[in-house]
Amino acid sequence: MGSVADTHAVRRDKLRVLARETGVEGVLVTQLVNVRYLTGFTGSNAALLVSDRVTVLATDGRYTIQAQRESPDLEHVIERACAPALIARAATDTLRTLAFESEHLSVATHARLLRLDPVPYLLPLAGAVEGLRVVKDERELALLREACAIGDRALRELWHWVGPGMTERDIARRLEATMIDLGADGLAFDTIVASGPNSAVPHHQPSEREIERGDFLTVDFGALYRGYHADCTRTVVVGREPAQWQSDTYDLVRRAQRAGREALSVGADLRAVDAAARDVVVAAGEAEHFPHGLGHGVGLEIHEAPMLATTSTGRLLARTPVTVEPGVYLPGRGGVRIEDTLVVGEDGPELLTTTPKDLLVL
Amino acid sequence: MGSVADTHAVRRDKLRVLARETGVEGVLVTQLVNVRYLTGFTGSNAALLVSDRVTVLATDGRYTIQAQRESPDLEHVIERACAPALIARAATDTLRTLAFESEHLSVATHARLLRLDPVPYLLPLAGAVEGLRVVKDERELALLREACAIGDRALRELWHWVGPGMTERDIARRLEATMIDLGADGLAFDTIVASGPNSAVPHHQPSEREIERGDFLTVDFGALYRGYHADCTRTVVVGREPAQWQSDTYDLVRRAQRAGREALSVGADLRAVDAAARDVVVAAGEAEHFPHGLGHGVGLEIHEAPMLATTSTGRLLARTPVTVEPGVYLPGRGGVRIEDTLVVGEDGPELLTTTPKDLLVL
Repeated sequence: MGSVADTHAVRRDKLRVLARETGVEGVLVTQLVNVRYLTGFTGSNAALLVSDRVTVLATDGRYTIQAQRESPDLEHVIERACAPALIARAATDTLRTLAFESEHLSVATHARLLRLDPVPYLLPLAGAVEGLRVVKDERELALLREACAIGDRALRELWHWVGPGMTERDIARRLEATMIDLGADGLAFDTIVASGPNSAVPHHQPSEREIERGDFLTVDFGALYRGYHADCTRTVVVGREPAQWQSDTYDLVRRAQRAGREALSVGADLRAVDAAARDVVVAAGEAEHFPHGLGHGVGLEIHEAPMLATTSTGRLLARTPVTVEPGVYLPGRGGVRIEDTLVVGEDGPELLTTTPKDLLVL
Repeated sequence: MGSVADTHAVRRDKLRVLARETGVEGVLVTQLVNVRYLTGFTGSNAALLVSDRVTVLATDGRYTIQAQRESPDLEHVIERACAPALIARAATDTLRTLAFESEHLSVATHARLLRLDPVPYLLPLAGAVEGLRVVKDERELALLREACAIGDRALRELWHWVGPGMTERDIARRLEATMIDLGADGLAFDTIVASGPNSAVPHHQPSEREIERGDFLTVDFGALYRGYHADCTRTVVVGREPAQWQSDTYDLVRRAQRAGREALSVGADLRAVDAAARDVVVAAGEAEHFPHGLGHGVGLEIHEAPMLATTSTGRLLARTPVTVEPGVYLPGRGGVRIEDTLVVGEDGPELLTTTPKDLLVL
């Protein structure tokens, strides 16, 4: 594997091939995470012009030095309004046709670009860089493994500490601080800690509710490491042996999650993966209590392609990290979600979140 | 001041007035932070339809219970694709003209909406809710005061602890953990810790560089509290008395910052506020080393209207929180930035970040 700069150059070459196939001379990249993927630049304001003749990164004066350091192989334009600056530059270089990221560029910015004179013909293009990002290289997988490993270690420490009387917010703070102590650069997303009846709310925000004996406790969390996002969920019971309905619900979700993991193979239909897990829940008569998709890709974003859902189209590719996270939520009582991050591979999926999935009683 | 639900209802009424003035029957709100401002709903997928006849919040199945709890006064539609669901609903209720948020809605989503049948006439509208958000109510100001107070307390603890040999990342982690311990819900943004030559990089990311005696150390940080963002920057010298160039640079930035603060008055021209501080830097011959605007509004977003910059238009209004943050950055040597969050008021600005601004030697 070459240098990091080589990696970015290879990615830009792939985008140039896509541009030619689309019939345009270049691509205007405005989605920040895509700019990062193609250049290594991590500032908060940027756009990128990629073409055969000219490739320029635009950012503003706060990031002049950082752009030189993070993307030394590129030409830079320093301008607050990045997209118009690159359109002007494309016109100077007589590029006549550019694709733009139509899922990202706003209607208002698009209208502003069209008022520039001269302006290249602007063709909407959706998901081009996102498509390149689906299959990860070895460097990306290494970062994702480390992000997940940090989470595993942090959760192990948390379980030693958790008990009745603590609040959901106490638990979220402790877990987040532990991930940072263990080397995370930040949080992959706001931690979900949901106890008792709150565990029936899939995306519950940690509250001042105190954990009681016999509660379900669901923790959905992840470390951010060098830009890569881990994602893991576990549900435990606190303070006493699970009630029958808790064991039954947990067992159901665990079986569904295993079926989902086992369906992860190269070439598998995305909707069929969702169905493999969902069918288990449906057969148990709980279809209505599993109100979300089975999982999603992870990488530079916490939610990225491919989505594993009833409405998905397409197939799984090797070296694609995805989550598998079925849940069953019983309003007013409680719920269970079990989530792993795995990498699809020719020899079966690689499990990155290795925390055990037996029903723990803390 | 009424209930929180009343607050949201009043905000929606103001948007209805704007809609009538614009000549449309309703507004489709797709920017999440604007949905939160108008409803209290904090989930990660939502859109809102506001009109005289019908007002509906759309979100997906993960947030059914949360939507009922956070916005109990509203009708809810549960659908993954929120904007199309609301357009369909508007058509059902025979709304013929809707404004949409043109600075937020992507070209691709806009095109998808236009393919629905029937579809109301969709008029681009920029900055409507953002305009309502500029002037804060007392509840918002109280949350912002608390966010800033948490940061002040955390910085005081940090200064007792910082010394040579620590890395920038050590310092960032400690400050972040302290804010969480002191009650922050999270970080307003990724903490900037820049030492020695790195302090010449306005938005430097904390690295493994160890602090040396005689370094400038710049810390730009903020607590997130109930959705509201604090923003504060201080530069100190570590380990020995400042060199002459350090004292001179600090004094210059401090004078510029004071001039900027003193220019904050109700009715002041936004560009004139930037100029008040910038003129001090220009007079010292350092114009090129102050490569960013003077400040920005803060609230539910870390950067929001109004911007205080050379290109700004408009005037300051009472009860508007803004940052004042001039900086002078000397490449290869170091830099200084001093930033406060203040609220514009009839009796002069209220300083929310009260940490002293004398040049500290730690």
